[in-house]
Amino acid sequence: MNVKAIFFDAYGTLFDVHSVLETCEQYFPDRGMQISEAWRQKQLEYTWLRSMMDKYEDFWKVTEDALAYALKALGLDAGKEVRSALMREYLHLNPYPEVQKALEKLNSRKLAILSNGTQAMLDLLVENARLTQVFSDVISVDELKIYKPYMGVYELGIDKLFIDKNEALFVTSNPWDAAGAKTFGFRVCWINRFNKPFDELGVHPDVVIRNLEELADKL
Amino acid sequence: MNVKAIFFDAYGTLFDVHSVLETCEQYFPDRGMQISEAWRQKQLEYTWLRSMMDKYEDFWKVTEDALAYALKALGLDAGKEVRSALMREYLHLNPYPEVQKALEKLNSRKLAILSNGTQAMLDLLVENARLTQVFSDVISVDELKIYKPYMGVYELGIDKLFIDKNEALFVTSNPWDAAGAKTFGFRVCWINRFNKPFDELGVHPDVVIRNLEELADKL
Repeated sequence: MNVKAIFFDAYGTLFDVHSVLETCEQYFPDRGMQISEAWRQKQLEYTWLRSMMDKYEDFWKVTEDALAYALKALGLDAGKEVRSALMREYLHLNPYPEVQKALEKLNSRKLAILSNGTQAMLDLLVENARLTQVFSDVISVDELKIYKPYMGVYELGIDKLFIDKNEALFVTSNPWDAAGAKTFGFRVCWINRFNKPFDELGVHPDVVIRNLEELADKL
Repeated sequence: MNVKAIFFDAYGTLFDVHSVLETCEQYFPDRGMQISEAWRQKQLEYTWLRSMMDKYEDFWKVTEDALAYALKALGLDAGKEVRSALMREYLHLNPYPEVQKALEKLNSRKLAILSNGTQAMLDLLVENARLTQVFSDVISVDELKIYKPYMGVYELGIDKLFIDKNEALFVTSNPWDAAGAKTFGFRVCWINRFNKPFDELGVHPDVVIRNLEELADKL
């Protein structure tokens, strides 16, 4: 594969969104996974719905709103302090265990992040995981005021890197993001970490791997 | 309230999408509710994602795709015949028990359906529930090739009825649909059948009721 640059999705792909689990458990014993799953589900829904309604709010706000909804829906009472503590976790999500090493193997290419997160969220996330040196570009959808899988977001990626879409590979764990990138015209690698079926959206990824370590071998 | 016309959402508002439960149980004992919930969740996701990617397929296809995904994700093996049998249920969804009587009480206004369903799906659904006489208009998003909560869909409603948005009330059980209609500028009635919190999307319905029977009293 002739690949000049690799775009990585951040949340769920490089970073484990369920890293919030431990702190959820501290405040709400035995409810951590429920909270984390409802939170993530609503966060995604709100990015899609706000995009469709042309009512953009940035990813920090959407993540706060999703957390507030998730806690209410689960009948859990949380004041502002608890919610702030949970939100802080979003700046310290753990990279998946193989990420650091796998990225090192790939660094003959330009490596970039293309994510729904705000610039500040992404910069802190990357810094806290000591990955700042690895990426040439950390690109946020925020300047477009619309979320993935809107086509303009993928376009933003190639515009920022001054490359053509056929020179890039797009790597994500999120099937809807993979479908968006494929629809845009990227070659797409889907990381299927949890052995799930791919979404039925009329397109398919070019490469499927179990974790990022497998990517270097495929290239 | 000065209301000339009332728009009703169909799926989940007038008709119970979980009417499929019984047939699901026939084929997959004890898995009915899981299937029905996963199916509905994916159906909605696919309408949003396809709208964002500008990859419209009609609601029948999206519903088929969502069913195929849901069964796979739950590890259930279903051939084409079983899936067809489940899809047929979508043309025979039960109206909620109070719907017929409640609509009769409201019929001094123009009553219309504005729904994601295809024209054929909606016409059969209304006919099978013997509600054909009740509605002046049954409006499908299909001619726009995009789904709710895209603003153009709500615009289509008032265009078809030749009315102004402030002359209408929009009634739905789906919080994201209520948020869309409110963002468009409709007065909105949210039917909160299952005592859930409203979505955190920056807008709120004007009226909240438990079931359609309460609507006549509010007007």
